[in-house]
Amino acid sequence: MSLVKLYDTTLRDGTQAEDISLLVEDKVRIARKLDELGIQYIEGGWPGSNPKDVAFFKDIKKEKLRQAKIAAFGSTRRAKVTPDKDNNIVTLIKAEADAITIFGKTWDFHVREALRISLEENLELIYDSLEYLKKHAPEVFYDAEHFFDGYKANPDYAIKTLKAAEEANVDCIILCDTNGGTMPFEVAEIIKAVKEQIKTPLGIHAHNDSECAVANSLHAVDLGIVQVQGTINGFGERCGNANLCSIIPALKVKMAKECISDEQMRHLRELSRFVYELANISPDKHQAYVGNSAFAHKGGVHVSAIQRHPETYEHMRPELVGNCTRVLVSDLSGRSNILAKAEEFNINLDSKDPVTLEILDNIKEMENRGYQFEGAEASFELLMMKALGTHRKFFTVLGFRVIDEKRGEDQKPLAEATIMVRVGGKVEHTAAEGSGPVNALDNAIRKALEKFYPKLKEVKLLDYKVRVLPAGQGTASSTRVLIESGDRHTRWGTVGVSDNIIDASYQALIDSIDFKLHKSEEQE
Amino acid sequence: MSLVKLYDTTLRDGTQAEDISLLVEDKVRIARKLDELGIQYIEGGWPGSNPKDVAFFKDIKKEKLRQAKIAAFGSTRRAKVTPDKDNNIVTLIKAEADAITIFGKTWDFHVREALRISLEENLELIYDSLEYLKKHAPEVFYDAEHFFDGYKANPDYAIKTLKAAEEANVDCIILCDTNGGTMPFEVAEIIKAVKEQIKTPLGIHAHNDSECAVANSLHAVDLGIVQVQGTINGFGERCGNANLCSIIPALKVKMAKECISDEQMRHLRELSRFVYELANISPDKHQAYVGNSAFAHKGGVHVSAIQRHPETYEHMRPELVGNCTRVLVSDLSGRSNILAKAEEFNINLDSKDPVTLEILDNIKEMENRGYQFEGAEASFELLMMKALGTHRKFFTVLGFRVIDEKRGEDQKPLAEATIMVRVGGKVEHTAAEGSGPVNALDNAIRKALEKFYPKLKEVKLLDYKVRVLPAGQGTASSTRVLIESGDRHTRWGTVGVSDNIIDASYQALIDSIDFKLHKSEEQE
Repeated sequence: MSLVKLYDTTLRDGTQAEDISLLVEDKVRIARKLDELGIQYIEGGWPGSNPKDVAFFKDIKKEKLRQAKIAAFGSTRRAKVTPDKDNNIVTLIKAEADAITIFGKTWDFHVREALRISLEENLELIYDSLEYLKKHAPEVFYDAEHFFDGYKANPDYAIKTLKAAEEANVDCIILCDTNGGTMPFEVAEIIKAVKEQIKTPLGIHAHNDSECAVANSLHAVDLGIVQVQGTINGFGERCGNANLCSIIPALKVKMAKECISDEQMRHLRELSRFVYELANISPDKHQAYVGNSAFAHKGGVHVSAIQRHPETYEHMRPELVGNCTRVLVSDLSGRSNILAKAEEFNINLDSKDPVTLEILDNIKEMENRGYQFEGAEASFELLMMKALGTHRKFFTVLGFRVIDEKRGEDQKPLAEATIMVRVGGKVEHTAAEGSGPVNALDNAIRKALEKFYPKLKEVKLLDYKVRVLPAGQGTASSTRVLIESGDRHTRWGTVGVSDNIIDASYQALIDSIDFKLHKSEEQE
Repeated sequence: MSLVKLYDTTLRDGTQAEDISLLVEDKVRIARKLDELGIQYIEGGWPGSNPKDVAFFKDIKKEKLRQAKIAAFGSTRRAKVTPDKDNNIVTLIKAEADAITIFGKTWDFHVREALRISLEENLELIYDSLEYLKKHAPEVFYDAEHFFDGYKANPDYAIKTLKAAEEANVDCIILCDTNGGTMPFEVAEIIKAVKEQIKTPLGIHAHNDSECAVANSLHAVDLGIVQVQGTINGFGERCGNANLCSIIPALKVKMAKECISDEQMRHLRELSRFVYELANISPDKHQAYVGNSAFAHKGGVHVSAIQRHPETYEHMRPELVGNCTRVLVSDLSGRSNILAKAEEFNINLDSKDPVTLEILDNIKEMENRGYQFEGAEASFELLMMKALGTHRKFFTVLGFRVIDEKRGEDQKPLAEATIMVRVGGKVEHTAAEGSGPVNALDNAIRKALEKFYPKLKEVKLLDYKVRVLPAGQGTASSTRVLIESGDRHTRWGTVGVSDNIIDASYQALIDSIDFKLHKSEEQE
C-alpha cells in the first residue's frame, strides 16, 4: 500500500478566500487538529507577505505536534537580487519551519509580461532560490505555478522550469493548476508526459474553478503523484482549493492509498465542522462525505432497500468519516419513508392501518398548501403525535396581540407583543418588546411560558427562514416560516404556513416550544 | 462541432434534495427559463410517484416553449404485470410528454435483493417496458441505474441489461452513477468498454457523492457520450447531481461542444440565481463560473496583470456566463459598476466629484447592511436622486401603527393598520385591514395617498420576497424585502432592509409609491 502525503494549505491559500479571516490563535488551533488527523504537512502562511504569519511560525514552535511538519510559503527570489539578500527568502528561513515551499513562474507569457525578465533568467531564479534554500531547510518543495496552462502554451519551456528545480535537488515538485481551468482528461495526459521527463517526486495543487479540483487531484494520485495539496472544506480564493475532506476518503477507501489511519479518518467530519466554526462559515450540508445530507435519503423507493442492505445505496459506510445515515420525510416519500421516520421517533406505525393512511394524506395535503417537513422534523413529529393521540397539551395560548408602531418620519418602528396563556388552571398575561414584530412575539411567548417551564430558557432560536409562496399575489400570498431551534444538546426544526406572517411565525415558534417540552418529559 | 444534448432534471432529481420543495407554479417558471437557456430536455417529474407532478405535465402543455422537450420519468414495469397494466407505465403515457425516461436495475445484487426476481426476468422487464413505451411516446430513454457499481460487480450482466434496452430500440441509454461513488479514472475505463459493445447513443447521469460528478460527466463527453443529465446549481439528494452550470461552460469553452448558443450562455448566471431564489436557498458564492467570487481576485500580485491580460489569471472570460471580474482589495471595480448603472438612468456622475464618492460609499455601506439593488433599481434611482438633490417630496408619513391580534386558540389573527400622512398642508389619518400585517399596511398607505394622488390606483403589487440575513441570530436577524410593482406600462423593483420586517416592507412599499409619483410627473 503506497503512502500519499497530504499537504494542507488551509492556513495559507485557504485564507485568501474573500470571506475568511483567521486570527493567529485560530490558526494554531486548526494546526493542532490537522496534526491529530494525521496531515503530514501544514502550510502555515506566507511570512514574507503577511506579518501575522510571522507570529504563527513563532507560536507553532511552542506546540508539541505529534507528527505534522510545518511548511512556510514564499516566492522565488526577485530578479536583481541574490537569494541571501532577497527579503522574502530571508524571512522564509527565519521562520525556521520544517519545510519551505516556494512558487515560481512556469508560463512563458507570465515570465515576459508579469516578471518582465527573460526566459533564461527565470530558470536561474528558480534554480538558485531552491539551491540556496536546500542549504537552509530540512525539506524544500517547489510549486510550479500555472503549470498546466504553461505546459499547454509552451511545453518545452514548462518542462525546463521543472528541470531547473530538479537540478537544485528539491524534495518534491508540485504541479499547480493555479487558474483552476484544466480539464481532468488534460491533467491526466500532461502528468503522464511530465513523468517521462522528471524523476523527482511530484505533487498536485488544484483549484476548483471548473469544479474539477478533487477529480484532478485523484487522477494525479492514480498516475503516481505522491503529494496532494488542498484545504479543509475546499476553502480558498474564487472557487476554492482542492477539498481534502473529499480527497482523503477517496484515497483510503477507493484507491487503497494510505495517508492517515482509519481511526484518524473517523474524525474527519469533526475536523470539517471545527474549521467551519472557527472561520465563521455555515457548513455546506451537501458536502461530499462529511455534509449533513451526504448520507440522507429521500424518495420512497430507496428507504426499504437501505435498511436491508446499505451498500446498495451508499457508496461507502458513513461511519468511516464520522458521519451517519439519515432518513428524510417529504411528499416524495412512499410509505416507507414516513414509517422509517416514525420508527426513529419510537412511534410504530402499521403501514396498513387507516390511521397511517390518514396521516399520509394529511401530510401530502399540508405540503400542497406550502408546509415543508424537511428541516422541520419536529413539526412532523408533533403532527404524528396529535394524529395518534399521544400528544400532550402543555399549554393553551388564549390570544396575543402584536403592535408595530412608527412615530415620526425618521423613527424606526417599535414592536410590542402581549400574550395570554393558560397552564393547568393558571393564566399568565404578559408583554414584551422586540426588534420587530416576530421577535417581540417570540420574546412574549417565552416570557409567559418560562414561568411554568423554566427549562425553556435553554431554547435558543438559531435560524429563521421566510418564503413567500406562490409569488403571484404580492403581500396577500402565503408565507412559510422555517425555524431552527436548539438547546445544549440538539437542534430541531419547525414550520408554519399562513397568509399572515405573524401567524406563520407563531405556528413555528409554538411548535418549537411544544417539541422541547415533549422532549424534556421523555428524558425524565 | 458536435452537439451534446443537455437533459435537466432539476425539477425531478433536483427536488429530491433535503431542503428543496417546489410548487407546481415554481416548476413551470423554471421550465420556461430552462427552455430559454436552450436546454434540450426538461425532466418535469415522476407522475407515477408524485401527484404534484401530474399537475406539472398538464400545466406545462399550456406554455409555448421555444425548443425544449418535456420528459416524464418513471420505472420499468413491476414484475408480475404486463406494461399495459402497470400503473406507473400507464401514468407515464398519460402525462403525454415529448419523451419518457425509465430507470431499471443493472446491478445483479439489486435485482435479487431489492426486486427479488431472477436476472433473466429483469432483462425481460427492461425490454418489454421499453418496447411498449416506444409505441406510445416520441422518444424513449433508458436510465441504467447504478450502472458503474453494477458493471464493477458483474460486467457481463450489466452489459446484458443495456443490450435489452438496445434491442427495444431506445433512443438513448444513460449510464447512471447513482451512488455517486465512481472515480473519474474508473468512469473513463468503463465507458470505453461499453462503447465497444453498445451502438445506441449514450448518456451520463452522475451524482456528486465523491465531488466528481462534473469531472465524470466531462470524461463521458470526451469519450463520445451525447446526452448529459444534471441539475441547475447541482441541486439533488445527498451531495447533489452533476451541476449543469459547471458543465455547460466547460463543454462550450474548453471542449468545443455545442449545446446552447453563446447568447444563451450569457444568461447562465441569471438562471442560476433565479433557481436559487425560487428554491429559497442562498447562492454558493464560491460556485464555479457563476458564483459571486468565481472571478474575484485578491489584490496585490495579480491586479495590474489582470487588467492588462485577464487570460493570465482567469481561465475564461466571466462575461461569457453573465458574470464579471471583481478585484477585492481596491474597490476600483465597485466604482465602475455604479458609474455604469448611473449612466443607465441618464444620471451623469463625475467619477472625481466628491458627491459621487459619497454616493459610492453610501451604496457600499448599504450593501454591507444587506441592501441589494439588483431587482430594486427603482430604490437605487431614488437614492441617487436624493444624493443629487433632484428628489421631490410628494408626501410625508407622520406615523403608522400595525396591529396583529389573535383571540382564541383556533382563530387566525386579524391585522389592522392605521396611518397618518401629510401632503402639502393637509393631513390624512386613516385605517385599513389586511390578510396579514404587511398587507394591512400596504392597504392603509394606498388608501391614504390615493386621496391625493388618484394615479396610485394603477399601481399593483406583483411580487413580494423576503429574505432573512444573515441567518445567525434567529428572529433578530436583518430582513430584506424585495417588492416588484407595476402599472399598465412598466414594472419596477424596490427594496427595504431592517431587523423589523414591517419596517423593511414599509421602506420597499414607500419607495414603490415614491417612484411611481416621480415617473408620472416626468411623463407630464
